Amino acid sequence: SIDGQRLWDSLMAMAEIGPTENGGSCRLALTEEDAAGRRLLLDWCESLGCTWRVDRIGNIFIRRAGRRDDLDPVAMGSHLDTQPKGGRFDGILGVLAGLEVFRTLEDQGIVTERPLALVVWTNEEGSRFAPAMVASGTYAGAFSVESTLAREDRDGVTLGEALEACGYAGELPVGEPRLDSFFELHIEQGPVLEEEGETIGVVTGVQGMRWFDVTLSGQSAHAGPTPMRYRRDALAAAAHLIDRLQAYALADESGDTKVTCGCLDIVSASRNVVPGEVRLTIDLRHVVERELDILQERFERLLVEVGESFGVTVSQERIWASPVVEFAPECVAAVERATRVRELPYRRMMSGAGHDAVYVSRVAPTAMIFVPCRDGISHNEAEYATPEHCAAGAQVLCDAIVERASR
Amino acid sequence: SIDGQRLWDSLMAMAEIGPTENGGSCRLALTEEDAAGRRLLLDWCESLGCTWRVDRIGNIFIRRAGRRDDLDPVAMGSHLDTQPKGGRFDGILGVLAGLEVFRTLEDQGIVTERPLALVVWTNEEGSRFAPAMVASGTYAGAFSVESTLAREDRDGVTLGEALEACGYAGELPVGEPRLDSFFELHIEQGPVLEEEGETIGVVTGVQGMRWFDVTLSGQSAHAGPTPMRYRRDALAAAAHLIDRLQAYALADESGDTKVTCGCLDIVSASRNVVPGEVRLTIDLRHVVERELDILQERFERLLVEVGESFGVTVSQERIWASPVVEFAPECVAAVERATRVRELPYRRMMSGAGHDAVYVSRVAPTAMIFVPCRDGISHNEAEYATPEHCAAGAQVLCDAIVERASR
Ligand SMILES: NC(=O)NCCC(=O)O
Ligand SMILES: NC(=O)NCCC(=O)O
Repeated sequence: SIDGQRLWDSLMAMAEIGPTENGGSCRLALTEEDAAGRRLLLDWCESLGCTWRVDRIGNIFIRRAGRRDDLDPVAMGSHLDTQPKGGRFDGILGVLAGLEVFRTLEDQGIVTERPLALVVWTNEEGSRFAPAMVASGTYAGAFSVESTLAREDRDGVTLGEALEACGYAGELPVGEPRLDSFFELHIEQGPVLEEEGETIGVVTGVQGMRWFDVTLSGQSAHAGPTPMRYRRDALAAAAHLIDRLQAYALADESGDTKVTCGCLDIVSASRNVVPGEVRLTIDLRHVVERELDILQERFERLLVEVGESFGVTVSQERIWASPVVEFAPECVAAVERATRVRELPYRRMMSGAGHDAVYVSRVAPTAMIFVPCRDGISHNEAEYATPEHCAAGAQVLCDAIVERASR
Repeated sequence: SIDGQRLWDSLMAMAEIGPTENGGSCRLALTEEDAAGRRLLLDWCESLGCTWRVDRIGNIFIRRAGRRDDLDPVAMGSHLDTQPKGGRFDGILGVLAGLEVFRTLEDQGIVTERPLALVVWTNEEGSRFAPAMVASGTYAGAFSVESTLAREDRDGVTLGEALEACGYAGELPVGEPRLDSFFELHIEQGPVLEEEGETIGVVTGVQGMRWFDVTLSGQSAHAGPTPMRYRRDALAAAAHLIDRLQAYALADESGDTKVTCGCLDIVSASRNVVPGEVRLTIDLRHVVERELDILQERFERLLVEVGESFGVTVSQERIWASPVVEFAPECVAAVERATRVRELPYRRMMSGAGHDAVYVSRVAPTAMIFVPCRDGISHNEAEYATPEHCAAGAQVLCDAIVERASR
């Protein structure tokens, strides 16, 4: 069995690096804090006799030898970077649970058949360098190494420059080492497990996501003398669009349709001016690709209708699309077996959020394990998972990894 | 008859002070540019033999002597300050038409029975010092002189300091001189006259206005893993509120109900985060005070309903209310007579926007004259009124003033 207290202690020790005012963490990707977090992890792993290598985009592969070192490693991991006001668990739990697996095996003198790897993926959050999950995506071939190295942060610093500056520009070609399989433990980042009183989510895949930038252009006008029927109010049009999309998503009783407008800006807003131009973002998600197509069609039709009925011109651009992911049945089965053996209450579920596992699943059999997080809150200093839930997740990870590495 | 070309030339000369890139003007209240605009006007008036005085809050009263100098002057005027990217007509037309009235009387050797006054009200726009119309409001007793002098701009400069700096801190007690009556010519700032092919709006009053600050607080959450039915989406709630208010106002076939949301901000907005808090402004207007009460009740009820159905807490504060104004029948009649004599197509109408005349009407019989402005656009560099319409408005102003000053 893994040591839940030791895992908790390492989570709390990591949280001391880049602590925030309200009990969270700030370790933006490839900053000094991120480097210090990586260094702490590597110190712990070195003391266990593990070796490590870094690829050209800063992904770290920490190796624990097996009996058959000619075979690809069975891998686990996640990320150590955080949001600017991030929590202590998102990503970090998946990495430190991997450390706990190594420590447990070491304590018990177990050497697995296949070698193991603990992977730290660079810049998962996307807060410093957009987009999110860029380094696991590059590992899996979704982005070129050059384009990834050239991504700039807000201050114009490239990801390549940041790697050099913080000492994590490695030599290993991106895409190496190949992984036998990959397991990522993560907090759910949603309320379902907590609400249902379950300890483990056996994650069978990830819902598809599509991001849109939308512009509505009407005519700004004085709020006082402009009669309602003459207006071409871009905000009224946007409000109608959001309200209709919301109603459409809520009407899906399966709960699988998700629509979010996260950003909305009125250009040159003023209290007594009818808004002339509004820019907003739309995030569409669904667990079935065909349903996501239908949702997108619905959104596009609604946008056109709103444009016509409010006298505003509309335009939209799809800036990102992540197809529905189905994880490898054999990896999901390994997670589910471990969960049952440990008699933990669980559900099979799709991940609502993107994770490094999304991209890694393109090149290696993959699965994920979720544990509940308080009130479903993440990307927030208040993010919290109980020591018991963290330990349960690490135990399932350990059991699944050991099973998989014994093949 | 007034000289339309001369009026146009003075409008264009004034527009040269603080010109903007796209053909508008920028003379924020009590800046160097505003002072230069005032100086130009005073030079013109001095050359006509007029005298002038400035009160403690910078309002300028330019006097043309009458035969009965013991009587209060019949006054006209408006403001010379502009929005940051303002037009060449809003306010300025009402002041320079007054200059044109003086010049016309001078040309024709006419001395009126009562003295005349041309008034320049300080800081009408409210862009530098909030609120709008603050100096005419102080003249009329709606604000104390001390509070007005203490109003600060964005940089912490008080209105009093700005007056000193630009040389318009006068000695005259605020509230002096008393005016026999007041006439303000202004562009309509809406589309009605243009749409209806009318040259003059005989303004019978000003609709009532109420301004609200609204906050909706739900719970921010990750857009991916948070099911629709668990959300407490502050933006979805705001969108529903705006959509319902819009529909309510549009359903009023009289067109007298006006609702505008001009500002809306999502706190810590992010593309993949369900908005947790939204702040917005609501501007309600109606030409009948009782109907405005009903509109406010409707808005308040809707806000409560939205809060309940979206699981968000709502709060609102009414930060400003300007009651419906009915102008003095004798002044309105003088404007209407002048319009008919000149055979100009016109309509009697309520002003949709607030003007200095709103406050002045509390202490002197008042009326306003509107002329069309292109596409109803104002507070914009593209603001435009034709030379013919400006001349027609100035002619009606002249005739009404002369009639009134002949009593
Ligand atoms: N886990 C996470 O926040 N991923 C970012 C992509 C998403 O919005 O799902
Ligand atoms: N004329 C004008 O823009 N007044 C400001 C107050 C209002 O919004 O009506």
